[in-house]
Amino acid sequence: MRDVDSRTGIEVLDRDQCLELLAEDVIGRLVVIAGGVPLVTPVNYCLDGESIVFRTDEGAKLSAAGRALAAFEIDSFDRETRTGWSVVVTGRLGEVTEYEDRLRKRLDGLGVDPWAGGEKPHLLRLVPTTVTGRRVSSRS
Amino acid sequence: MRDVDSRTGIEVLDRDQCLELLAEDVIGRLVVIAGGVPLVTPVNYCLDGESIVFRTDEGAKLSAAGRALAAFEIDSFDRETRTGWSVVVTGRLGEVTEYEDRLRKRLDGLGVDPWAGGEKPHLLRLVPTTVTGRRVSSRS
Repeated sequence: MRDVDSRTGIEVLDRDQCLELLAEDVIGRLVVIAGGVPLVTPVNYCLDGESIVFRTDEGAKLSAAGRALAAFEIDSFDRETRTGWSVVVTGRLGEVTEYEDRLRKRLDGLGVDPWAGGEKPHLLRLVPTTVTGRRVSSRS
Repeated sequence: MRDVDSRTGIEVLDRDQCLELLAEDVIGRLVVIAGGVPLVTPVNYCLDGESIVFRTDEGAKLSAAGRALAAFEIDSFDRETRTGWSVVVTGRLGEVTEYEDRLRKRLDGLGVDPWAGGEKPHLLRLVPTTVTGRRVSSRS
């Protein structure tokens, strides 16, 4: 059953729909807070169960691991048809301690890796606390 | 002159290049911090000088106006050619007090408005403190 807000026309996606979209994409935007400032970085990722896994080097993302809440967003817009969707995950970052080799192989095999130049020896995992999504269909 | 990081292969975009990319797009992701949690929302926007202007209803974005630092991100990725770019603006949010009618008309005329369902009576402006961008070209 579709859950559409009658005021805004926006369809609320359930957790399973959001996870399906997260499983299909490979690039999203990670947000961590560093010194009160939100830092936004595109990252290549893979979905491991319900967690977002990505590589990083020494930096704000790694520093944020285990401490602050982080957010992760993917979306797709069609400017012609005026449609689109977005999925936002919030949760805490932690370093990957299990299945690390398997996950590295999956990340290496994504086929796209535009942001992964340089050494990124650390694997981080965003374990979701909330998973929300919405979709806007054509309003004709 | 292109400023390319030899370690990562990532080209750093200067402020003018970032502003050009911001002037060409119409949808980006706004990040505000509410209660220590980063909130990410796609918004339709227009560039007014160097400011990002968008509509909002009563909510976290409006509450954040005048207080916390916010971030705004646009990007484009080509998963086939493994190329892409992103631009991130940080700054403070404020309500629009000048040229409001003119800016409303520009936002109305964008031709895309997927996320603007419902009434969004307030206009907010993100005045940039920092504007950064990077581009990844094909590594062959």
